[in-house]
Amino acid sequence: MRDASSDAAATNVQPLPPTIAWRGGEDGALELLDQTLLPHQRRVLTLRDLDGVCEAIVSLRVRGAPAIGVAAAYGVVIGVRAAATTDVATATAAVCDRLLRTRPTAVNLRWALERCVRAAARDATLANLLREARAVHADEVAMSDRMARVGAPLVPHGGCVLTHCNTGRLATAGEGTALAVLFQAWSQGTRFRVLADETRPLLQGARLTALELAAAGIPVDVCCDGAAAGLIARGEVQLVLVGADRIAANGDFANKVGTYGVALACAAHGVPFYAVAPCSTIDPALADGGAIPIEERDATEVSTHGGRSFALAGVGARNPAFDVTPAGLVTGIVTDRGLLRPPFATAIKAALASGR
Amino acid sequence: MRDASSDAAATNVQPLPPTIAWRGGEDGALELLDQTLLPHQRRVLTLRDLDGVCEAIVSLRVRGAPAIGVAAAYGVVIGVRAAATTDVATATAAVCDRLLRTRPTAVNLRWALERCVRAAARDATLANLLREARAVHADEVAMSDRMARVGAPLVPHGGCVLTHCNTGRLATAGEGTALAVLFQAWSQGTRFRVLADETRPLLQGARLTALELAAAGIPVDVCCDGAAAGLIARGEVQLVLVGADRIAANGDFANKVGTYGVALACAAHGVPFYAVAPCSTIDPALADGGAIPIEERDATEVSTHGGRSFALAGVGARNPAFDVTPAGLVTGIVTDRGLLRPPFATAIKAALASGR
Repeated sequence: MRDASSDAAATNVQPLPPTIAWRGGEDGALELLDQTLLPHQRRVLTLRDLDGVCEAIVSLRVRGAPAIGVAAAYGVVIGVRAAATTDVATATAAVCDRLLRTRPTAVNLRWALERCVRAAARDATLANLLREARAVHADEVAMSDRMARVGAPLVPHGGCVLTHCNTGRLATAGEGTALAVLFQAWSQGTRFRVLADETRPLLQGARLTALELAAAGIPVDVCCDGAAAGLIARGEVQLVLVGADRIAANGDFANKVGTYGVALACAAHGVPFYAVAPCSTIDPALADGGAIPIEERDATEVSTHGGRSFALAGVGARNPAFDVTPAGLVTGIVTDRGLLRPPFATAIKAALASGR
Repeated sequence: MRDASSDAAATNVQPLPPTIAWRGGEDGALELLDQTLLPHQRRVLTLRDLDGVCEAIVSLRVRGAPAIGVAAAYGVVIGVRAAATTDVATATAAVCDRLLRTRPTAVNLRWALERCVRAAARDATLANLLREARAVHADEVAMSDRMARVGAPLVPHGGCVLTHCNTGRLATAGEGTALAVLFQAWSQGTRFRVLADETRPLLQGARLTALELAAAGIPVDVCCDGAAAGLIARGEVQLVLVGADRIAANGDFANKVGTYGVALACAAHGVPFYAVAPCSTIDPALADGGAIPIEERDATEVSTHGGRSFALAGVGARNPAFDVTPAGLVTGIVTDRGLLRPPFATAIKAALASGR
């Protein structure tokens, strides 16, 4: 049943601090809102060393493909600064190498770090690395805005939109990817409800997406991941919008585990299913999704929550963090360079060419 | 990753008390192992009044379609005894009516209660009602044994079997439905691993299925419900066995929410998908699954666990407890009267006729 108190107005949510911010100049610090503590606790981490930045990415204190890329770009400044070397280019390469290994699936991380390496090759100074990190940050904000405008007309007035995981302000440097589309549609007067998959094991949907939507005044209900297919079958969902962590050249894409099942249910019931991601999420070197590396995270994420163990001691767990949705199940991909439609191989090639 | 300590031998699980037992004669009591406290705590409830039996069913202290039926049959004895009337038939009807309203989806409950009503019509004594409850109990044990023998040859030696929710000793009066097949195959020397969907919101897979399999020495890993489709796509699952709460005349069936998504993934990747249920789960009055009533349970089951709230206060939740899997996705139905194959309408009619 839908709780009578689920009207967003009733939640009285205070605005969140920025997901990512850089305070000061070259001697400054990276501020990250610790997302593992949300929605109950708001703690801003101030990071001044590379270990701290890497730990924050690995532990999902900062998460979401675009946000990871921005945090890593600032992490380069922090890491190279600590190296205290005149050979900034070499130090940049080493620091980028370390940051790249924090999370294997999202390609925006590599995209951002490659920008830092190229920047250091052009002008091997800390000042230039900070300039590049700020540029990565600003570009993500701008891309988010463009995706929002491209996708907003897809949202059905009076309908219900299902989303998976968190793809809003907390997942990016800007307004988000899939959630940015919803924020934009809402601000244009489109009215709809959202069904947020809770997104086990770390509950980014229940903890973060519900928080962001409630803060924006958009009505939201949470459901268990396993409930999505049945609700779609019963006609309760008119549109699905999800993010993406890596998109292959043919349109196959990796996203938070559970996405593929939602796509299968949409295909079975004719519900439009869109991925929303900046072109920095596209990895044209991968022909299809079969080659996307899928991060398998620690079993304790599945067997415990908040320090409480659900399962019997000694029972193992499988914990793939992502799955791959084949392009054939995808209605379209909303990008900062327009709405891509099948055949995706052609559309993706054209979108990437337009950005050169 | 699979925890090295997940070998069942390492868990050193003590045998569980019986799921359901009747102690004494007509003045006796119903004993239920409280499943909401497992795997961490083992408490046997001793129930002597109808309120307690109804509460135990509603709160899922006893759950699983066959187990609910058996508990309710004993509940009739308790309820009619308290009525202290000479009109046992009328009292039976009233008590059955109350018990029938505890859970709307599983049909075994109705099947068991209708047996009690018929028994009271034949011989309106408390002694006869207890005899009938014991017969319902014994029949469930026998049906479980027959399903196990029918299904065991399906289990692939060296393979991985995925299951959803809990369908073992805890869900029935006997060895179970889907899990009974696995216990039987294991006892015959077939060796395999099990992947147990955790089964949100109440984690019957992580809490109960993993416990039962570990206790039987069968290797088991838990996964989040959303991970099942991706693992099936990657070829990690060779067979899926699930239970059923109500099967329509055409083979559509309701089972724990999340089952339908598993069936979609199996169909997409050619993995055999079987339901395992006694014929008492078939509701021939329903032409198809569209008419199966789907219980929607309280939103707090989704937003909290163990008293801890995951989501923001004021955010609502949808909580359908079941979903419907269409017969077209089902490879076969393992019953106590043999393995049913498509076309299911014909096979179901024949199976029901064979039991008259």
